[in-house]
Amino acid sequence: MATLVVPQNVSVVEDAENLRKAFEGWGTNEKVIISVLAHRNAAQRKQIRLAYWDLYQEDLVKRLESEIKGDFERAVYRWILDPEDRDAVLANVALKKSSDYHVIVEIACVRSSEELLAVRRAYHARYKHSLEEDVAVHTTGDIRKLLLGLVTAFRYEGAEVNSRLAKSEADILHDAIKDKKINHDEVIRILTTRSKTQLMATFNSFKDSQGTSITKVLLGETADNEYKRLLRIAIRCINEPIKYYEKVLRNAFKKFGNDEDAITRVIVTRAEKDLQLIKELYYSRNSVPLDQAVAKETSGDYKDFLLALLGKQD
Amino acid sequence: MATLVVPQNVSVVEDAENLRKAFEGWGTNEKVIISVLAHRNAAQRKQIRLAYWDLYQEDLVKRLESEIKGDFERAVYRWILDPEDRDAVLANVALKKSSDYHVIVEIACVRSSEELLAVRRAYHARYKHSLEEDVAVHTTGDIRKLLLGLVTAFRYEGAEVNSRLAKSEADILHDAIKDKKINHDEVIRILTTRSKTQLMATFNSFKDSQGTSITKVLLGETADNEYKRLLRIAIRCINEPIKYYEKVLRNAFKKFGNDEDAITRVIVTRAEKDLQLIKELYYSRNSVPLDQAVAKETSGDYKDFLLALLGKQD
Repeated sequence: MATLVVPQNVSVVEDAENLRKAFEGWGTNEKVIISVLAHRNAAQRKQIRLAYWDLYQEDLVKRLESEIKGDFERAVYRWILDPEDRDAVLANVALKKSSDYHVIVEIACVRSSEELLAVRRAYHARYKHSLEEDVAVHTTGDIRKLLLGLVTAFRYEGAEVNSRLAKSEADILHDAIKDKKINHDEVIRILTTRSKTQLMATFNSFKDSQGTSITKVLLGETADNEYKRLLRIAIRCINEPIKYYEKVLRNAFKKFGNDEDAITRVIVTRAEKDLQLIKELYYSRNSVPLDQAVAKETSGDYKDFLLALLGKQD
Repeated sequence: MATLVVPQNVSVVEDAENLRKAFEGWGTNEKVIISVLAHRNAAQRKQIRLAYWDLYQEDLVKRLESEIKGDFERAVYRWILDPEDRDAVLANVALKKSSDYHVIVEIACVRSSEELLAVRRAYHARYKHSLEEDVAVHTTGDIRKLLLGLVTAFRYEGAEVNSRLAKSEADILHDAIKDKKINHDEVIRILTTRSKTQLMATFNSFKDSQGTSITKVLLGETADNEYKRLLRIAIRCINEPIKYYEKVLRNAFKKFGNDEDAITRVIVTRAEKDLQLIKELYYSRNSVPLDQAVAKETSGDYKDFLLALLGKQD
């Protein structure tokens, strides 16, 4: 369930003209940018970019970058791109900072198989390399194995579940954790090649036999390293993406000075998907509406833009 | 350059009717099967399957399987499928016999990036698993790493070459061979993630600095194992697929009793692609036309079918 609110009658040509007017004259009219862009879906935003080019022979994305600044600009820039192109940008930016590899795991594990292929295609077009090529160059060892497996996966998406297999692979995962070998090839094989439905059955089987979830057991694991962190994120993104995103937001607000990149990323990438569910979980978990938390922790046009994406009506 | 000969005016409905007539009455009329199917391209064959279903509510592929036998049936069965579906079948069959893993390498390395994605999609539809999932289950160790990397690759296909990178990665490959570490993660990383154009530059750089090609050096390598064999095939399929296929045919004829699976596979998968170039190379390498070699080593309807695909006019 999306939070994005799109009016019934949209003229992309008028939108392009209004944006142009917002850029001209004294200063930029940020209110117009928000009222147009934060209420259009991905297909409409693409049409607006095309219409703007046709009318003014100017790249709307570049113009926006020169008109606005800071967190607001970053949020608008990410929002206006096609979803697969945005993910390609997010992955590429994340590759430059090893502490951000969880963004790559998130894209690889939350997106559908066809969506992930579209991201890989967009990555080619934008960076003249393959995503896996850049992942492989930037990483080594177990982290490389895990990330490569995740970004190159094209998981089967049928509903079939093999319960016997779920049980035996839950045992493999459990043995690997017990033997302190969570970097074992078999763990990576299971997590990177099985269908999400099959993996959910495996995680359930783990919980049934161990009495506690695999992510909790991993948390208690002594090895406290980056590989373990990414492995847990992969499992959470596959198994319970809404819970995962709610926690990303909660942690982002907790951070000193907030983590605007994370706040922007969750709201921008989920507004057309399941942000409503994330909002509901956030409220039940924190007893504060997500909009209110966002309003408290952000300011200015950036705040108004995020609130619009969260479903606030003008 | 293809060898397939398709007449100008094709009616897929008439084709379906003629095939039906060929199945009915006393025995099957194999000549009709050959004269229709061996002269239709992939799109037309698909249309014929659909028209046949519309007319007779019967699966043409299943009917053909029950009407004809042996090598002829296997060749027709592979031919009539959509190319990506055929590759999915070839890969699945190859997975059941470890000595056939070269077929998987061939599909992963010769097909374009989008063609390989189509194979993976067809594999989902047919087997309710992902290709990489089945590869990972059937293999272990270095062979698993190599095959998984190859089948999950979505290589960049632009013409850009980084010569400095080609030189440094040629050195990595050379050092790995020198140190008897051709199973090193870096070797697999380079071969499975770089674009084919970039890899060709790397192989050329290797040849320039070593005075001999990487495949020749690998041949002289002491370790004589399956991993090395597959690694060489991957390099040959990326670097010189025509030469690779010519040699597959040459070896197939040399084998005692021939290797019909290989002969069928090369002719069926390349007839619409580059079989003309393979034919020309075969002739210049063996001083015998490929058609003649095929005619000598095969017989009956199987022979007639292969010769038709090789461009023989009725």
